[in-house]
Amino acid sequence: MKPEDRFVERLRALLPASASVLLPPGDDAAVVARPSGPLAATTDLLVEDVDFLRGEDPERLGRRAAAVNLSDLAAIGAQPEFFLLAIGFRTELGEDFPLSIARGAVARAGEFGAALVGGDLSAAPQTIVAIALWGTPAAAPITRGGASPGEAVWLSGSPGQAAAGLRLARILAAFAEQGAKPTERFPSLSSADQRALLDAYHDPSPRVALGLSLARLGVASAAIDVSDGLGVDAGRLAHSSRVRIVLERDALPLSRPLRAFAEMEALDPIELALSGGDDYELLFTAREGDAPRLEACSRELGVPVTRVGRVESGRGALLRDGGLERHIASLGHDHLEAAR
Amino acid sequence: MKPEDRFVERLRALLPASASVLLPPGDDAAVVARPSGPLAATTDLLVEDVDFLRGEDPERLGRRAAAVNLSDLAAIGAQPEFFLLAIGFRTELGEDFPLSIARGAVARAGEFGAALVGGDLSAAPQTIVAIALWGTPAAAPITRGGASPGEAVWLSGSPGQAAAGLRLARILAAFAEQGAKPTERFPSLSSADQRALLDAYHDPSPRVALGLSLARLGVASAAIDVSDGLGVDAGRLAHSSRVRIVLERDALPLSRPLRAFAEMEALDPIELALSGGDDYELLFTAREGDAPRLEACSRELGVPVTRVGRVESGRGALLRDGGLERHIASLGHDHLEAAR
Repeated sequence: MKPEDRFVERLRALLPASASVLLPPGDDAAVVARPSGPLAATTDLLVEDVDFLRGEDPERLGRRAAAVNLSDLAAIGAQPEFFLLAIGFRTELGEDFPLSIARGAVARAGEFGAALVGGDLSAAPQTIVAIALWGTPAAAPITRGGASPGEAVWLSGSPGQAAAGLRLARILAAFAEQGAKPTERFPSLSSADQRALLDAYHDPSPRVALGLSLARLGVASAAIDVSDGLGVDAGRLAHSSRVRIVLERDALPLSRPLRAFAEMEALDPIELALSGGDDYELLFTAREGDAPRLEACSRELGVPVTRVGRVESGRGALLRDGGLERHIASLGHDHLEAAR
Repeated sequence: MKPEDRFVERLRALLPASASVLLPPGDDAAVVARPSGPLAATTDLLVEDVDFLRGEDPERLGRRAAAVNLSDLAAIGAQPEFFLLAIGFRTELGEDFPLSIARGAVARAGEFGAALVGGDLSAAPQTIVAIALWGTPAAAPITRGGASPGEAVWLSGSPGQAAAGLRLARILAAFAEQGAKPTERFPSLSSADQRALLDAYHDPSPRVALGLSLARLGVASAAIDVSDGLGVDAGRLAHSSRVRIVLERDALPLSRPLRAFAEMEALDPIELALSGGDDYELLFTAREGDAPRLEACSRELGVPVTRVGRVESGRGALLRDGGLERHIASLGHDHLEAAR
């Protein structure tokens, strides 16, 4: 178990039982009972040099901070409604800096129906963005704990693109410091491919529409958003559901830009997909017979989903490659381990 | 206008109008409309070396972070219900460190009926605590904007004690570094007085019961929690209500520990009261005829309240001392100005 997951288990042991807490700490979002029905809430804290690169554009950072939270509500199938935004920053940057963060967050959250209603500011030695977002579950919340042996495992989008985008952004930043022209270094990576990877990292697309549809259709037995790495997040879903998740290596939908970047950098694209993190795709489970409904839902929303594996009895998360099996639940980020 | 208040005005100009936002950014908490009735929400970000002293005890820090947020809901008259806790910390401190912060926050919020439902962790170069807290307004929310000329101005508790406590904590920390015995330095400040001042800073008492009673009785026309300094917060209430707030110097309830500390340090206790901040007392306005009801409410709750001034037509916040008047709206902390 990762240190962060152990922390959550210890934290849960601290909490008094409460009938109004429908989904306690340890899932993508909390769900609490209120007179009008359940309310879903989530928070994410982003710290400069840890969760994003130093000197990140503030408006883009605001968009990303909103997306990270929107993705949590997407994973449980809740409609985003309102958010609070707290910003720490070096005051010598002036008030335009937090205002740009707010502008980005307001725009990105607004695309998914969520409005900024308040916040807080503090001086800080580096940029800090904390968002708390809440909304209404579209139906019974999809938890991490509902997967059963025999079901299929599905994934939206293409894992690993954000990890490649982060590496590319670091390379470009190093070139910029040296005054070199980056384009000359990348003969095998088209501008469009570069853009696709950078966008996947800087401006991820939270799968809110997909999460809402999965909840309304009642078709996903469990779901998690892939924020820390496909490996570790598959392991978390497996742990919560008390099952084994087996992903098929050849089924992982690796994008052309990811393959091109990995080849150029002599990296294994599968490693980027398993341990990269920051994807904000949904990994979910469904009965085998529901494949046609899922494929219809995918077409309707224009969101690609791929069957990437199976739920088995047992524990842990594995990658199966022909006859070989490999444990992958430790591949990815842990917020209690070293900075990325 | 302080930079932070100007920021909030610019932020509000960014936001699309929304019928579901009943109390937008710029008050102590936000209030949004939901099917079952209004929901109040607030967030506060605390950063080490800025909002609290380096090396603060983590459990005490958790209690204080909860109290700061509880005070915001108190100011609008809302019952706290649940909260999210995001923590940034040096991972070499180990998972017991954020767990102690959580334990303190859970205990303090629990005293006021609020449960922890989720959170987030991140590595960070210093300790960061961000809480988002939700609750239900007991009646129509008390805003900063409802004061009218001719009303009285009231204050709970004793302002300036937390500011004195912070200074005392810094003195004690400096002594501890030198290995000196602090008690010998303080012949005129009893242990009980020291404890009262340190507690006022480290473990403030959010005035939740008072705020709820004021809302239920409909007796407060406007309120604000005194977090940044009596001067600046009186100015904020005046600005929102488009009135002038006049505080009477001789009416300010200065505590015996505060007077003793100020005398020892050759400080003016009035200055500590006006610009100190961190009091988390409620400053509120009420019709003159409501004094007996307020005094009865104060007795019933065991929360001291004092009539400290008057609402007049005009603008700004003044301290009246006999025939002299002094502008006080710039006295206190601004989160966009230098660190405290």
